[in-house]
Amino acid sequence: MSNIVYLNGEYVAADEAKISPNDRGFLFADGVYEVAKYYYGKAFRFQDHLDRLNRSLKEIGIEYDTEKLEAVFMELIQKNDMADKHAGIYLQISRGTAKRSHHFPDEIAPTVYAYAFDLPSATEKLENGIKVITRDDIRWQRCDIKSVSLLPNTMLYNEAHQSGAGECILIRDGKVTEATHSSVLCVKNGIVVTRPLSNLILPGITRKVIMELCAANNIPVEERPYSEEELYEMDEVFIAGTGSEICPVVQIEDQLLGNGKPGEITRLLQKLFFELV
Amino acid sequence: MSNIVYLNGEYVAADEAKISPNDRGFLFADGVYEVAKYYYGKAFRFQDHLDRLNRSLKEIGIEYDTEKLEAVFMELIQKNDMADKHAGIYLQISRGTAKRSHHFPDEIAPTVYAYAFDLPSATEKLENGIKVITRDDIRWQRCDIKSVSLLPNTMLYNEAHQSGAGECILIRDGKVTEATHSSVLCVKNGIVVTRPLSNLILPGITRKVIMELCAANNIPVEERPYSEEELYEMDEVFIAGTGSEICPVVQIEDQLLGNGKPGEITRLLQKLFFELV
Repeated sequence: MSNIVYLNGEYVAADEAKISPNDRGFLFADGVYEVAKYYYGKAFRFQDHLDRLNRSLKEIGIEYDTEKLEAVFMELIQKNDMADKHAGIYLQISRGTAKRSHHFPDEIAPTVYAYAFDLPSATEKLENGIKVITRDDIRWQRCDIKSVSLLPNTMLYNEAHQSGAGECILIRDGKVTEATHSSVLCVKNGIVVTRPLSNLILPGITRKVIMELCAANNIPVEERPYSEEELYEMDEVFIAGTGSEICPVVQIEDQLLGNGKPGEITRLLQKLFFELV
Repeated sequence: MSNIVYLNGEYVAADEAKISPNDRGFLFADGVYEVAKYYYGKAFRFQDHLDRLNRSLKEIGIEYDTEKLEAVFMELIQKNDMADKHAGIYLQISRGTAKRSHHFPDEIAPTVYAYAFDLPSATEKLENGIKVITRDDIRWQRCDIKSVSLLPNTMLYNEAHQSGAGECILIRDGKVTEATHSSVLCVKNGIVVTRPLSNLILPGITRKVIMELCAANNIPVEERPYSEEELYEMDEVFIAGTGSEICPVVQIEDQLLGNGKPGEITRLLQKLFFELV
């Protein structure tokens, strides 16, 4: 946790940042968020995060001018002396505080909260890969909105955490969707396979970067649904996200994937990704 | 909004009640809630609310001794001079405040927030009935947990509100589940019809009271799934909840239900309900 955070236009000590328990973010999960990564003081794909944030806000009908956020985030990096390392910025915008009612109040000002935090690459995991578990995707049907309605994600990830796994891959109607807080991509016969974007998965920015890297480097990609059974038969599997970067999956539940080592295309994509950032 | 609220063991002025934006209730919707009704200072079905709360807490793994809540609620009623009217108590328990992580932190103390508010019967609606809309039930698959992961509920109810309707009835896989913050019950050929309890609906306390009233008064009940098409063909429809009490539905989307007046069995159940409370 950083020492100086941003709350509703002000930079305050983290301990002094307070909101009302009548904030609709607390009462109704009525808000959206983003996590951006700053590599040595420089934001990675900031515009993509901003575009996704604006889309999330629009989808749930919160009006907020996000133009100023780039400066706010940079200020947080600087105020917390994080320009010389890997840092993350967490941003949350809720609809604001009002008397509790299920409908959206007419007169309400959004709550805007942001803080910087250490976000080093998980070197050991990136090198050796992680184990994952699989669970039914019990989430709502607008996972394309990056909302804070995340209780299912935390419950499912907690199961992974308790069993010593690094993520939980989600299965809806027999098909892989994504993981609790990362995208899932696979490789089969030299082709990168990932589920097409829809209302059931978040449009991951790292996922998008990977698609671009594949296109630029003649790595074929197939966007198609695939089953849980196919997942176990993939040559390579990896998760992707702002925090996870590109992290190999080497074990699914009790079964090793291939020889239990990160695969060649995963390694290549990691290399291309880190050259880019 | 009452003037004196309860927050983490203390009674404070509503304006002074503050929580951290790092509360997992705000960051992750990682919490549960209850709304109990007090008729002239006397709680209605308090034990049922407590039982449901304890179940919700257990399902998401929050440990909290709820025994003291009965006294807290009564104190709120008294401190806010609400013993002579219809009042509601809103209670929310979140997992608490910690550095943001998807898994549940080991060392964390729940945030407990409660307040009293005016909750008069919606006399005009109870008398004349309401219009409802229907929408796809896009919520998660653990609607039996009374969690604050309510963004979908608010989005769907907001659509009802905007179109001048009083509730939004939810349809999953072609079948009626419930409404955004009430249970749905129907009458066909003298039989009360309602969907059986499952992971897809909240075990409504008013719904349970209605079942008991039906049993005690020889009104036959069928708990079974029914389709959206059947909903439109019902003789009577009503919603039930702590706030809604027993409220007739007289119009679904653009179609009047029967003659557009509350039905006989709905009226009888309202009468029996208000005799009980």
